[in-house]
Amino acid sequence: MWPRTRLAELLRVEYPILQAPMAGGPTTPELVAAVSNAGALGAIGGSYLSGAALREQIHAVRALTDRPFGVNLFAPTGVAATAEQIARAQALVDPYRAELGLAPSPEVALPVDRFAEGLAVVLEERVPVFSFTFGIPPVDDLRRLRESGTVVIGTATTVVEGMQLEAAGVDVIVGQGSEAGGHRGTFAGDFERGLIGTVALVPQLVDSVSVPVVAAGGIMDGRGIAAALALGAVGVQMGTAFLVTRESGAHPKHKAAVLASGEDNTTVTRVFSGKAARALANRFTEELRAREDDAAPYPVQNVLTQDVRRAAARQDRTEFLALWSGQAPRLARPLAAGELVRTLVEETERVLGSLGARA
Amino acid sequence: MWPRTRLAELLRVEYPILQAPMAGGPTTPELVAAVSNAGALGAIGGSYLSGAALREQIHAVRALTDRPFGVNLFAPTGVAATAEQIARAQALVDPYRAELGLAPSPEVALPVDRFAEGLAVVLEERVPVFSFTFGIPPVDDLRRLRESGTVVIGTATTVVEGMQLEAAGVDVIVGQGSEAGGHRGTFAGDFERGLIGTVALVPQLVDSVSVPVVAAGGIMDGRGIAAALALGAVGVQMGTAFLVTRESGAHPKHKAAVLASGEDNTTVTRVFSGKAARALANRFTEELRAREDDAAPYPVQNVLTQDVRRAAARQDRTEFLALWSGQAPRLARPLAAGELVRTLVEETERVLGSLGARA
Repeated sequence: MWPRTRLAELLRVEYPILQAPMAGGPTTPELVAAVSNAGALGAIGGSYLSGAALREQIHAVRALTDRPFGVNLFAPTGVAATAEQIARAQALVDPYRAELGLAPSPEVALPVDRFAEGLAVVLEERVPVFSFTFGIPPVDDLRRLRESGTVVIGTATTVVEGMQLEAAGVDVIVGQGSEAGGHRGTFAGDFERGLIGTVALVPQLVDSVSVPVVAAGGIMDGRGIAAALALGAVGVQMGTAFLVTRESGAHPKHKAAVLASGEDNTTVTRVFSGKAARALANRFTEELRAREDDAAPYPVQNVLTQDVRRAAARQDRTEFLALWSGQAPRLARPLAAGELVRTLVEETERVLGSLGARA
Repeated sequence: MWPRTRLAELLRVEYPILQAPMAGGPTTPELVAAVSNAGALGAIGGSYLSGAALREQIHAVRALTDRPFGVNLFAPTGVAATAEQIARAQALVDPYRAELGLAPSPEVALPVDRFAEGLAVVLEERVPVFSFTFGIPPVDDLRRLRESGTVVIGTATTVVEGMQLEAAGVDVIVGQGSEAGGHRGTFAGDFERGLIGTVALVPQLVDSVSVPVVAAGGIMDGRGIAAALALGAVGVQMGTAFLVTRESGAHPKHKAAVLASGEDNTTVTRVFSGKAARALANRFTEELRAREDDAAPYPVQNVLTQDVRRAAARQDRTEFLALWSGQAPRLARPLAAGELVRTLVEETERVLGSLGARA
């Protein structure tokens, strides 16, 4: 018997386990559908997709499951960089372009913020769950989503962010602990101050907001899920655990690197995208560590490093890939996603039972 | 009914709750005895004490309780700083000396490593529990302690450190998560790589060593204790929670600052002691942030900032105090220590019971 949480009822899933919506490749329709078919909540990381591509992904997921699923978009952050910032960032990147056989950085077209485009698709497609990070979208957008029956989930890394999300009218808050892999969601302060461990963040968030809180960061197995419930969370969001699954579209060498990694091998870096994110340390993060301030602001830096990351992926060179990972890679398991969900459920039941026997 | 853990049996306490041995003032005999009398394990932070002063504290604790208690010492780290390092560090500190009405830095006598002196007292006094951090003392010392009936506890911030501690023959390992206040115990690598959140660190440690693991970092109430047990820990060590108790010898303004603080107000700094430690951000940490590399190595920097910290304490100026705190100060409660232990026990039973009902 799995615990009935408020979250499972709200999302109409069996288990309050959210597959983190990892943008940029991992969340294939096959992954999303496998997670949802197993009774958890799969989600598309839609931030880097055009409206048409996002719609295609949504259709592909719906062809594989009739269960609820989610779409995540980065909240609009604005796009701005001076010519000087771009020149400095290009100087960071050009030696790696040369090493990978690419021409020096071309003139950069500033990227378009795709939020409005993606949101229109989410609304038209009546996606069951919409989540966002990096800030708070316009409250009118959130209201329209909720009015059309979509459950709205925001991401907080501090109590203040949680309170702002609640005021904006979200249904659920994901508390992203410092252990989490990938981009930090911090939007109401310095990212370093927003690096709060899950054990500390979750109960303080729970005490400060009235909407349900989902724990994220470092949760990889039934022990972590039971711990999250003990801390007062109504569910969990797990990224790295799903990144290494069979259906994940992460680069095979990325999966292999996570599976081979220790817990002390990650770093929080801005060199890939201009926004702080946790990844396995590699040549790119370590060589550029002292020059992080030369990275262009997000999302411009992301565009500037795109060619390098793509060429590195083609050439299987992990030293230049953004190897997103949380702090518990030793607990990662290369299962099929549905099998992972079933394993998590069994493990959690076992841990909860054993804790209950001690009470 | 409290869970019977291996740790409670080993330590001969009722509850597997360890009061963190906070050096430099907080661990008064009254605090240590109140914690032990309530059925948990009090501990003296003995690192800055002479042998005679440590012996006096041990006797004072024994006059107040016949229950087990612990003593903690920093493992020997060596003492070294060049004249140039000292001069640079003095230049950091002198403006604050002036502001506090102190003369410029005097010539510095390098501090003496007090480990051997403290250890002799621990052995002679047959202290029930000995814990250490910052490294691993000579294995012969650890063997002598265990042969004389003392339970030996080491501190790890990474899996590798845990494995080294197990090989050295400790009975128990405290896994210090990144949320923890005060000094980082990291000794086998860079402190930044050792900033692993408790939710990630504990299960990875538990899977990698066969000795019992105690969780530390961000644990403040029954939710945190239940979470630690879910993660596979056999108990918890709590610092900030006890720092604010009535019997704690922490400066009253330090207690008040923790009780008034948010979760996003701490920083990891080397400016107080030369070793990375988590404290509430204040003028001293923020003004010197960009010049951290000018701090002398531990423990020399600790000596260089001592006058400033003492004068600041006398003058009630928290902007120059080392306001150690973990990342969950919102959960701190200004209770008597025994009352805190009783509250923690009740809360934990309630959480475990409710988790068990969900299983």
